[in-house]
Amino acid sequence: MYTEVEHDGGRDTVAVEEPLEIRVDGRPLAVTMRTPGHDEELALGFLYGEGLIDGPRAAGLTDDFAANTVEVAGPLIRDPGQRRFYTTSSCGVCGKGALEEVAVMSPALPSGPRVSRSLAASLPDRLEQPGFAHTGGLHATGLFDRSGTLLITREDVGRHNAMDKVIGRALLDGLVPLGERVLCVSGRLSFELVQKAAVAGAPLLVGVGAPSSLAISLAQERGVTLCGFARRGTMNVYTHPDRISDG
Amino acid sequence: MYTEVEHDGGRDTVAVEEPLEIRVDGRPLAVTMRTPGHDEELALGFLYGEGLIDGPRAAGLTDDFAANTVEVAGPLIRDPGQRRFYTTSSCGVCGKGALEEVAVMSPALPSGPRVSRSLAASLPDRLEQPGFAHTGGLHATGLFDRSGTLLITREDVGRHNAMDKVIGRALLDGLVPLGERVLCVSGRLSFELVQKAAVAGAPLLVGVGAPSSLAISLAQERGVTLCGFARRGTMNVYTHPDRISDG
Repeated sequence: MYTEVEHDGGRDTVAVEEPLEIRVDGRPLAVTMRTPGHDEELALGFLYGEGLIDGPRAAGLTDDFAANTVEVAGPLIRDPGQRRFYTTSSCGVCGKGALEEVAVMSPALPSGPRVSRSLAASLPDRLEQPGFAHTGGLHATGLFDRSGTLLITREDVGRHNAMDKVIGRALLDGLVPLGERVLCVSGRLSFELVQKAAVAGAPLLVGVGAPSSLAISLAQERGVTLCGFARRGTMNVYTHPDRISDG
Repeated sequence: MYTEVEHDGGRDTVAVEEPLEIRVDGRPLAVTMRTPGHDEELALGFLYGEGLIDGPRAAGLTDDFAANTVEVAGPLIRDPGQRRFYTTSSCGVCGKGALEEVAVMSPALPSGPRVSRSLAASLPDRLEQPGFAHTGGLHATGLFDRSGTLLITREDVGRHNAMDKVIGRALLDGLVPLGERVLCVSGRLSFELVQKAAVAGAPLLVGVGAPSSLAISLAQERGVTLCGFARRGTMNVYTHPDRISDG
C-alpha cells in the first residue's frame, strides 16, 4: 500500500505507515507501526511468534474510522504480561535467557527439507516485491516450498511485520508448523526474525542481509539452517548446513 | 562491537546483538535488542525520545554477569504506563493521534540551519561506519554541524538504537535541543526516527533510504526538513525545503 507525495524535485511513491493496535478480547496488547493491509494476518502471526496463541483465531478490523485496530478472539495460552527474557539475580538479562525463552515456544524441526545451494541462493530473486519497486521503502518476506515455488509473500515498512503477515497467512491456511518449507527475507537476519521462524517451525531461513551474533546462536540452538548474504546466486550458511546440498 | 563466526565457506565478522534491559529506579521499563556499547547513551536517548526525561540523568550498567541491564536514576516526567497513541471511540488508533502525541513532546524548531543541497546529500558519505564495513549488519546515525563536520556517530544492529545512542550522547554533552545541527541515518526514514529527531529538536534529518508516509506527515507538522534517498550527491527533500539552499 503506497501513496503519492510531492518533493522538491517532483513526485514520489512512498510506503504507507500507520499504527495498528492489536487487541485480544477487547484488551489492547501491542501497537506496531505497519503498512495497512493483511492486518488480521499480522495480528495472528505476531501473537503466534510470541507464543501467545497456538493456532488460528477469529480476527477482524474493528469498524472504526481509521481501521487501525484489529480484534482477535482469545483466550491466550499464556499471560502476555509475563516478562520477556529470563533473568536471575546473578546474571541479569542475557542472550542465553532469550534463547531459553524461545526454546519453550519452538517445536522440534524436521531434518529436511534438503535444497540445493543454487536454489536457496536464488530465493531473493523469486520474492515478489512490487511495493519495494514502487517505493524503495518496504521489506518483504516470502514462504517457498522446497522446489522454490513462492507460496505466500508480504511486504511492510517493518520487516518483522512482513514475516508476521506471512506466518499469520500460513496459520490461516493450515501450513503451520512450516515443516518442509523455506522462509526468505529481503533484509538482515536479527534475533527476532529467527525467533519467529523457529516458533513457526521453519527449518530454513534465507536472508539477503547479514546475520547478528544472537540470530546465529538461536538458529544453531533451535536447529534452523540460517543462510545470509544470499545474492546473485551465492550465500553463506551459518548453521546446520546439512539441509543444503551442492549444486 | 562484532565477533567472528564460521560458516560453510570460511569465516565472517558479524555484529553482536544482545538484549538490554532499561530500568528506572530499579523498575524494568523496556527491553531492546542492541549491539553492546554506549548503553547508558542508548537508555538516555530512548527515554528522552519517549518524553520520559527532559535532561541527562545518572545512568550505568549494573554489575551483573551479562552486563545487559542499565539503571537510570529517576524520576520520570510522565507515567510510562500511559497508552501510546491517542484514541477516541469514534476514530480508533490513528496516525493523527500519533502525530498529536509527538507534538506534545517536541520543542519548536529554529528556522535554520540553512545548508546547501550538495552538503546535505554528502552526509551519508561522511558517516563513519567501521562496523558496517566489517559486518554489513549495522545501522548508523551521525550528528553533524552545519558545516558538515561529524560530531557524534554510533552504530547498532537496530537503527532506532543508533539514533538513541547519538541523542543520549548529545544529551550528556549538553547539545540538546539539537538546534543548528543535522542528523543523518544510514537507512530508511520511519515515523519513529522522525519522532526521535523532532523531540530532540533536530531541524534537519537526512536519510539514505526511503521515507514512509507517516514519517513525512510528522516531519511536515513538526517543522523538520526531511531528506530521503541521499546518495551520490543527490537527494529528495520532502518537507520544509526552506532550509536547503542551491549549490
